[in-house]
Amino acid sequence: MTNDDGIHAPGIRALASALRQLGTVSVVAPDRERSATGHAITVHRPLRARHLALDFADQAFAVDGTPADCVKLALEAELVLRPDIVVSGINRGANLGTDVLYSGTVSAAIEAAMLGLPAIAISLDDLRNTHYEPAAEFACYLAKTWHNRDLPPDTLLNVNWPKNTPSQVFVTNLGRRRYSNTFDKRQDPLGRDYFWMCNNVVDDLTPHTDVWAVAAGHVSVSPIHFDLTNYRLVAEVGNWQLALS
Amino acid sequence: MTNDDGIHAPGIRALASALRQLGTVSVVAPDRERSATGHAITVHRPLRARHLALDFADQAFAVDGTPADCVKLALEAELVLRPDIVVSGINRGANLGTDVLYSGTVSAAIEAAMLGLPAIAISLDDLRNTHYEPAAEFACYLAKTWHNRDLPPDTLLNVNWPKNTPSQVFVTNLGRRRYSNTFDKRQDPLGRDYFWMCNNVVDDLTPHTDVWAVAAGHVSVSPIHFDLTNYRLVAEVGNWQLALS
Repeated sequence: MTNDDGIHAPGIRALASALRQLGTVSVVAPDRERSATGHAITVHRPLRARHLALDFADQAFAVDGTPADCVKLALEAELVLRPDIVVSGINRGANLGTDVLYSGTVSAAIEAAMLGLPAIAISLDDLRNTHYEPAAEFACYLAKTWHNRDLPPDTLLNVNWPKNTPSQVFVTNLGRRRYSNTFDKRQDPLGRDYFWMCNNVVDDLTPHTDVWAVAAGHVSVSPIHFDLTNYRLVAEVGNWQLALS
Repeated sequence: MTNDDGIHAPGIRALASALRQLGTVSVVAPDRERSATGHAITVHRPLRARHLALDFADQAFAVDGTPADCVKLALEAELVLRPDIVVSGINRGANLGTDVLYSGTVSAAIEAAMLGLPAIAISLDDLRNTHYEPAAEFACYLAKTWHNRDLPPDTLLNVNWPKNTPSQVFVTNLGRRRYSNTFDKRQDPLGRDYFWMCNNVVDDLTPHTDVWAVAAGHVSVSPIHFDLTNYRLVAEVGNWQLALS
């Protein structure tokens, strides 16, 4: 398990506690909050992994890096035994649509899939609620279900849990989130400008997207991969007959 | 224009100098190297943009954030007039296959596409060579060619230029790069372990991929998008009939 809210976040505790029903739980997570770090990795300085004794995990390491670093280090430096599945979360706040690219939580699960493991990212669409248990139980159920069915490799599932108690699960594709008034321009005490990024979401509620499902109060499960090729355009750009002068 | 090697990197100077043949060039780039930052954005502290007078650009701002921050700030805080195209690079080192997710250079171009603009990311497969001019000329040619043809929105082109003088251009899909011995484990003077991420690439040379094209000495152009949905699996996971207990 990993996350991007840090190893001491309530979401990872609730998720680990639930996943222990299924087997041994190893946690390798950032030593502090690393939200919005996307798929950043640490190449210009060394990483350290500190062993922690936590009551909710069989073993735990706090890493001074990003969520993707945690997954790489856990698996490639063999901090822990190779797991059957990697679960990332439960994130405080949804990770929907185009926002998944900014998300440390989802990027950690993508890194796990790149390293050949089934992976689930799970997020709660609420910044205040700390009632993570129903989403944690669903993650267990989903991990068990996946274990009994075959999905091709290089796949992960991105789960978002709505604010209020849901009654249905929708399997969705990723939608669009846009932001309005993205920056708040302010002046410091010396009269110099600075910009603070804001979070005014404008959701595109196209049906069958994750954005739509969660806005409608449902649980969203999106199968995602990490191949950004736009295959439809490979032939089209090929027809441009690009040449070197 | 932006990059992830920082506003003072030789790659951005060469690219800007070439692009001025086409029109006005505005540069909004990180004030220092921000390689491997992926699509990280800065939400927990404010950003500052410092105006610089640079001989190779019509206007320039150095931002104390990531490449994606630079694009967001340039466009959404209206630091510069809305451009016709965003070009990111020229990166020192290739950005191929699965590595594009780690790349600040490519993520900046993805951010531009998310904000509705045509975008090109361009990288040179050499960490030592500083002869960026041929790749810069190609970026101009590609920008002009794109301007005369219609590509659907939400698309960007990821270009990689090989180490030696190329003779052909291939339009490719993204391939795979894997790494062996990813971490070097060392001990500090106090006897405590630390881990340094290494860069031992093991390329998968499947034909028609970007990894293959550049290894074979060609220029690679990959059309990419930012929708990570695995559409083929949406129906399959839908058949699992997931339910809430």
